[in-house]
Amino acid sequence: MDSSNILSNWRSKLHEVIYGTHTPAGKLFDITLLIAIVYSIIIVLLESVRSFDDKYHDFFNISEWIITILFTIEYILRIICVSKPKKYIFSFYGVVDLLSTLPKYISFFILDTHFLSVFRALRLLRVFRILKLIRFVGESNNLIRALKNSRSKIFIFIFFVFIVSIILGTIMYLIEGPENGFKSIPQSIYWCIVTLTTVGFGDITPQTTIGQILATIIMIIGYGIIAVPTGIVSAEFASTKEKTPNLTNSSCENCGADIILSDASYCRKCGNKLKNNA
Amino acid sequence: MDSSNILSNWRSKLHEVIYGTHTPAGKLFDITLLIAIVYSIIIVLLESVRSFDDKYHDFFNISEWIITILFTIEYILRIICVSKPKKYIFSFYGVVDLLSTLPKYISFFILDTHFLSVFRALRLLRVFRILKLIRFVGESNNLIRALKNSRSKIFIFIFFVFIVSIILGTIMYLIEGPENGFKSIPQSIYWCIVTLTTVGFGDITPQTTIGQILATIIMIIGYGIIAVPTGIVSAEFASTKEKTPNLTNSSCENCGADIILSDASYCRKCGNKLKNNA
Amino acid sequence: MDSSNILSNWRSKLHEVIYGTHTPAGKLFDITLLIAIVYSIIIVLLESVRSFDDKYHDFFNISEWIITILFTIEYILRIICVSKPKKYIFSFYGVVDLLSTLPKYISFFILDTHFLSVFRALRLLRVFRILKLIRFVGESNNLIRALKNSRSKIFIFIFFVFIVSIILGTIMYLIEGPENGFKSIPQSIYWCIVTLTTVGFGDITPQTTIGQILATIIMIIGYGIIAVPTGIVSAEFASTKEKTPNLTNSSCENCGADIILSDASYCRKCGNKLKNNA
Amino acid sequence: MDSSNILSNWRSKLHEVIYGTHTPAGKLFDITLLIAIVYSIIIVLLESVRSFDDKYHDFFNISEWIITILFTIEYILRIICVSKPKKYIFSFYGVVDLLSTLPKYISFFILDTHFLSVFRALRLLRVFRILKLIRFVGESNNLIRALKNSRSKIFIFIFFVFIVSIILGTIMYLIEGPENGFKSIPQSIYWCIVTLTTVGFGDITPQTTIGQILATIIMIIGYGIIAVPTGIVSAEFASTKEKTPNLTNSSCENCGADIILSDASYCRKCGNKLKNNA
Repeated sequence: MDSSNILSNWRSKLHEVIYGTHTPAGKLFDITLLIAIVYSIIIVLLESVRSFDDKYHDFFNISEWIITILFTIEYILRIICVSKPKKYIFSFYGVVDLLSTLPKYISFFILDTHFLSVFRALRLLRVFRILKLIRFVGESNNLIRALKNSRSKIFIFIFFVFIVSIILGTIMYLIEGPENGFKSIPQSIYWCIVTLTTVGFGDITPQTTIGQILATIIMIIGYGIIAVPTGIVSAEFASTKEKTPNLTNSSCENCGADIILSDASYCRKCGNKLKNNA
Repeated sequence: MDSSNILSNWRSKLHEVIYGTHTPAGKLFDITLLIAIVYSIIIVLLESVRSFDDKYHDFFNISEWIITILFTIEYILRIICVSKPKKYIFSFYGVVDLLSTLPKYISFFILDTHFLSVFRALRLLRVFRILKLIRFVGESNNLIRALKNSRSKIFIFIFFVFIVSIILGTIMYLIEGPENGFKSIPQSIYWCIVTLTTVGFGDITPQTTIGQILATIIMIIGYGIIAVPTGIVSAEFASTKEKTPNLTNSSCENCGADIILSDASYCRKCGNKLKNNA
Repeated sequence: MDSSNILSNWRSKLHEVIYGTHTPAGKLFDITLLIAIVYSIIIVLLESVRSFDDKYHDFFNISEWIITILFTIEYILRIICVSKPKKYIFSFYGVVDLLSTLPKYISFFILDTHFLSVFRALRLLRVFRILKLIRFVGESNNLIRALKNSRSKIFIFIFFVFIVSIILGTIMYLIEGPENGFKSIPQSIYWCIVTLTTVGFGDITPQTTIGQILATIIMIIGYGIIAVPTGIVSAEFASTKEKTPNLTNSSCENCGADIILSDASYCRKCGNKLKNNA
Repeated sequence: MDSSNILSNWRSKLHEVIYGTHTPAGKLFDITLLIAIVYSIIIVLLESVRSFDDKYHDFFNISEWIITILFTIEYILRIICVSKPKKYIFSFYGVVDLLSTLPKYISFFILDTHFLSVFRALRLLRVFRILKLIRFVGESNNLIRALKNSRSKIFIFIFFVFIVSIILGTIMYLIEGPENGFKSIPQSIYWCIVTLTTVGFGDITPQTTIGQILATIIMIIGYGIIAVPTGIVSAEFASTKEKTPNLTNSSCENCGADIILSDASYCRKCGNKLKNNA
């Protein structure tokens, strides 16, 4: 056996560990990664609480460096063991993986305290890491499929809600006016959406009788049309329930794309022949 | 060929551009109009923000004049190229088209600053222009049909919500009284609808124990009966899903009404024989 | 023909006018009654607004007397033209009809100003008059039937919501305590229902971190279980949609009960043979 | 007959009274227990209201002792009449039954006033007693079954809501910042869930224009995705409606587990052959 064969063998094994979920090593890797992601997010959250940051600033800093290095190693390994690295790097998760490691490195080069707020914004990107969790739990699920199918209808519905809000928001601005808290048409539209979606903060409320009557109408409209997206999704759920084939949770050796349907023989992304898809 | 024939030909072409959506020219016209509408609405919105208006007053003024002139030309062209102009003028969109051009002209003749608030109210009508957008996206959709079919049931439901609000609002007024913010029965009804629709502004809240118990009951009623409109629309969606024939997006040459169903041979509004309905 | 026959004839005609909805006279009576009810409710509502009451006190007073007398005449006529008056008097609408006339008469005998608040409470009962409107629009509708069928399930659901609120409300009371606005367990339960039903007044809000975490959980529970009543009613709607026979809107000559199903040959309340049920 | 036979007979009868619901004695026991539970909870609730506790402290104290003793007797009897007491003791209701009696006894041994807050926490456990009520009304119902079946989907949905809240909450923290009430990322996430679930307390509200635009997007997302759990549960209800066999409400003589399906011949928990399951 020549060295290229050994390397290929080694890469194939690494691929199994990183992308696979069936072998014990693969499962261990996934769980470790998951814990690291959750841990890194908790650090970001707690760091923003001033009283915590004052006390444990050094601990947070060291934790972030460890996580950043771990994520960097993981990112490099992912590139190495995939046959077509370019496809991975420019895929959605590839970009997320890269962006979730960068912030801390940038904070190393730019020491100016004026840029601290920018750092915070960059650090935020690491929160997107949690999206990886969806990969484990979510994608192999017909929930997202039902949402995708009713996407266009939900878009039209949201668009309709938006138009109604513009019209009613403008009318409310003319009725109530800046003296009752409706300072501008955009703010009135904001209030209108707050009311229509039944959120109702209460920071702005109608004071005039006509304003309250219109508010009542807006509320009843909002209460009534909440039925529309529900009806759409319900109908979609009922129809998708029958069609769904069995699901699997493996991954393509070639491009790293997830294999969702158990009856697949070829990767739906790169066309690679799949070996052991149960 | 005589001139009447040439005119007829020219009108037929103009009709295709303005009302049609299949030809490149027709699509270009539609998109231009769409951009103009959205732009005009953004101007109205930003003009109401005092800080913007102070800075860019002249820019807003000129923009409004340009849009008003464009809309006027469009309105005249629409009248010219339809066979029965009267039907278009008194149709819903005809009235909207006219009203969305008028406000700026009126502001030209009436210069008295005391009438400024009236101007604002007139300018508002231009917001209705956005309703045209629905024509492109919305009407060729069975979403609105499902809503129309369940209209009578939703009306009864809203009527029921209203009666419950009157009764419970009156009881709340007697329990809480003006000293706890429930100043009159109409205002108590307003509060009751705010609570029943789960909006909950919090500007008026029950203070007495009995009032809080009744509020609890109102909330649970509201939480429970939200299921009713949803149930109605869901059932309607499930049943309309099967019946729907193929949809088209053309328009009648005679009266300008939209042709929705692709199997139509005659305009459902004026009975005109349709030519190229695919 | 003897006089008893004439009287019977006269009563039968009166019955047709008051309870029937098919003859022109019957329709006129119904519409007149409807207007009277709506008018009387508007008077009650406006009377509670202090500024209106100061200005139009005499007008309101006279209006109330006229309506009271009209309702009294109507009540007496209803008793006369029904074969079994006792059944009508002790039926739900019979009691409502009586109670909606009483308050003004009582205000005549008791002139002591200390009892004014009691008067207000009695006057409120007239609001129940509007329930009569439901008779015209609502009962001949399978909406109420679907609600009635899912009554037991909705009751269990509300019961469950109540238990969850008691448990979570008690926990919130222990976490936040009186110093953060959660003054007692009943008030914490009140807050919990406000949150669970997604109303969210904001008069009481958690201040501690643990309290906010629990509040988050309560909100997500509330957001999740709103699906339950919807699911129940939707399923009920889907199943009742097929079964519904034709509906009618007549009334039993004997006891005054409404006849709902057009295939009925006997009154479902008193067993009286129905004559002209189309 | 020997004494062991008499004892067995006596135990069998006691079992019928405590666990059975078919005999008059069994029904009487259940109703008595139900009243005792509701009474004990009302006492806990009212005790927390300071004005009540000041007046009726002794009455509350005596009431609690009586209830505690009754619950203790009931607990002992339950252990005696079940064939396998261990299974009952470590079952969910066994633990609840024990915990609902303990607090008052502990308050007897620990008299230190510093521990009063701990007592309150222990007393709270008695509230769980009400869970027993669910046993009577709830378990024999396909409502809970539908919820259980859609458990995994609802979990994914809540998980998704949580991730969206973390991402949007972090963005809101960066936009609004501590100066506008968004003091830390955890608190921003809390606000985000308050908004997403359409609760909308209004204690924290966005002040900047960009913040209000993002808030609008969050509200519309929340308003849109409320359809998802509803769709899930509706579909589940529709499918469970057909499958459900007849239900019963008896109980296993051996381990005390509830028998739910009327076609069961053996206890699904311990495999005991059932005698009189109608």
